Amino acid sequence: MRTGAKKPSWVVDKERGHKREAKETLWLFGLHAVRDALENPRREKLRLVLTKNAFDKLEGPVAASGMAPEIVDPRRFEVPIDAGSVHQGAALEVRALDWGRLEEVCVAGAGLPLVVLLDRVTDPHNVGAILRSAEVFGARAVIAPRHHAAPETGALAKTASGALERLPYLRVTNLSEAMAALKAMGFSLIGLDGAAERTLEAAVAEAGGRAIGLVLGAEGPGLRDKTRETCDVLARVPFAGAFGSLNVSNAAAVALYAATRGRLA
Amino acid sequence: MRTGAKKPSWVVDKERGHKREAKETLWLFGLHAVRDALENPRREKLRLVLTKNAFDKLEGPVAASGMAPEIVDPRRFEVPIDAGSVHQGAALEVRALDWGRLEEVCVAGAGLPLVVLLDRVTDPHNVGAILRSAEVFGARAVIAPRHHAAPETGALAKTASGALERLPYLRVTNLSEAMAALKAMGFSLIGLDGAAERTLEAAVAEAGGRAIGLVLGAEGPGLRDKTRETCDVLARVPFAGAFGSLNVSNAAAVALYAATRGRLA
Repeated sequence: MRTGAKKPSWVVDKERGHKREAKETLWLFGLHAVRDALENPRREKLRLVLTKNAFDKLEGPVAASGMAPEIVDPRRFEVPIDAGSVHQGAALEVRALDWGRLEEVCVAGAGLPLVVLLDRVTDPHNVGAILRSAEVFGARAVIAPRHHAAPETGALAKTASGALERLPYLRVTNLSEAMAALKAMGFSLIGLDGAAERTLEAAVAEAGGRAIGLVLGAEGPGLRDKTRETCDVLARVPFAGAFGSLNVSNAAAVALYAATRGRLA
Repeated sequence: MRTGAKKPSWVVDKERGHKREAKETLWLFGLHAVRDALENPRREKLRLVLTKNAFDKLEGPVAASGMAPEIVDPRRFEVPIDAGSVHQGAALEVRALDWGRLEEVCVAGAGLPLVVLLDRVTDPHNVGAILRSAEVFGARAVIAPRHHAAPETGALAKTASGALERLPYLRVTNLSEAMAALKAMGFSLIGLDGAAERTLEAAVAEAGGRAIGLVLGAEGPGLRDKTRETCDVLARVPFAGAFGSLNVSNAAAVALYAATRGRLA
């Protein structure tokens, strides 16, 4: 056997993974999402499919992007987007954005010293809404693990309402390691947990002027043990009744509001 | 002509409208929504369609409700719900809930002296999420006009995650009249408007211990002129950047948090 000349299987797997990632593209759709991507110079754009009607509405951004759109009949609008998606006659094939390294984004990035970390939040609509809120409240990034998180998709981009083009959605190999790195950078990590003793307001007050990382888990399971243990403090949103819990994107909006109180105009 | 014996057309129309309303039913679907409706004694239930698998999971609530379910093959699950809905093998035909009069609900109702008013928010997912948050923060009701609002549907119920069974979703004939009635009951009405001078926090502080009504408009158009004028005060959620705005359900969650700060444990 000439195994010595062969690469170990894990190397082959890793190389295949990199190749797959580099090849992977996604389709953005809807006038708003396509316009924002066209206007984003950092976004690698591959194919633009428009109806005549959509082209009329996007003429400026299309011209500025330098792309040559394929104009199609609305009845022959055949791009690989989710069935039933409201595409408004506009679809753009792109590659996922590369936002760079955690440290660059979280230390030197624009916005407040504030980030959101998502532990296995997989619903693209929730993640999209969280990106949108994070941008509104001036956070630097939304951070999620590379696996077990909502990938960058057209549905996510549409819910994010443009924020996907402007706010770093960082995918990290290991969430706990990223949390440790953030702590080393000076971030105070507040994990949202309905069973916590502290209120969110108290936790933010204790953090004082330090940079804050808000850590949210998926609805139902919540934070995983390892994630919970890596937080500096756990806190809850005060609630009234025995029933119900906030949707994760609503919890994120409330946490972002609480963390920025007094810091925004 | 024997018109004297005929009812005027507007009377006929009105009677037809009442009959149509009384006849109207909706299909709730999904294990969670169906369970919560089965457990709600106020909910008028008509037909229950379950797969064997779903029946096994809902056996207790089904027995307690006294309903005789139709057990169907998963491949023949044919009930009139939205295409692509994740029904989990459970669907229940019901009538809309009758929550009674505005005054009864808003003055004598359970929870904090706090209500949410929606001005033409028509997306069922947004309204469902707002009902869910309103319950978590202990509000008494979500109030919307009878027309130009999201009707009670299966999709709304699913997003509300049970809150539709427990929190009054009141539909009023005229939103401005309902606002005037709330003011007469002692409510201070705070309209959310991104261009307002006051912050939400300042507006809540000014309301002191008074009952609060939070008024939110649809994304894009915002509050209509008449609605804006009828508010006691306009307020904005502080934001960071030039881009973006909160999704309406996220704005509602933030407003509910701000209005209940210090009032909930």
